[in-house]
Amino acid sequence: MEQSVLEVPGMHCGGCQGRVERAVGALEGVRRVKADFQSGRVEVAFDGDATNEDAIRSLIEQIGYEVKR
Amino acid sequence: MEQSVLEVPGMHCGGCQGRVERAVGALEGVRRVKADFQSGRVEVAFDGDATNEDAIRSLIEQIGYEVKR
Repeated sequence: MEQSVLEVPGMHCGGCQGRVERAVGALEGVRRVKADFQSGRVEVAFDGDATNEDAIRSLIEQIGYEVKR
Repeated sequence: MEQSVLEVPGMHCGGCQGRVERAVGALEGVRRVKADFQSGRVEVAFDGDATNEDAIRSLIEQIGYEVKR
């Protein structure tokens, strides 16, 4: 199991938070995801054989949120 | 020019509003888009030869927002 903490500062409400969690949680290989709009952080635990941090970043960007590098 | 008013109740902040506007505004054929998270409405003016309301609905759903029928 691998873990990443991503900075997603564009989440400004519980709706944003839930939307990011649902999108990331639906990605194959993702085991747990916890987004927090107040800290702007998204913590993800995933199976590194099935996905990777770049795929998770791309998905979050696809739904319209910037992910800081 | 055609116009649609879509109900998108899941927008809860200015970030949501801007995200929907940017996504819809980038769609080919869309001429104007105005989202308002307080009313939950998205007004779109578009060239009916280039796109249609279903394509706009699908795009909004793709970025994680429910569009009421």
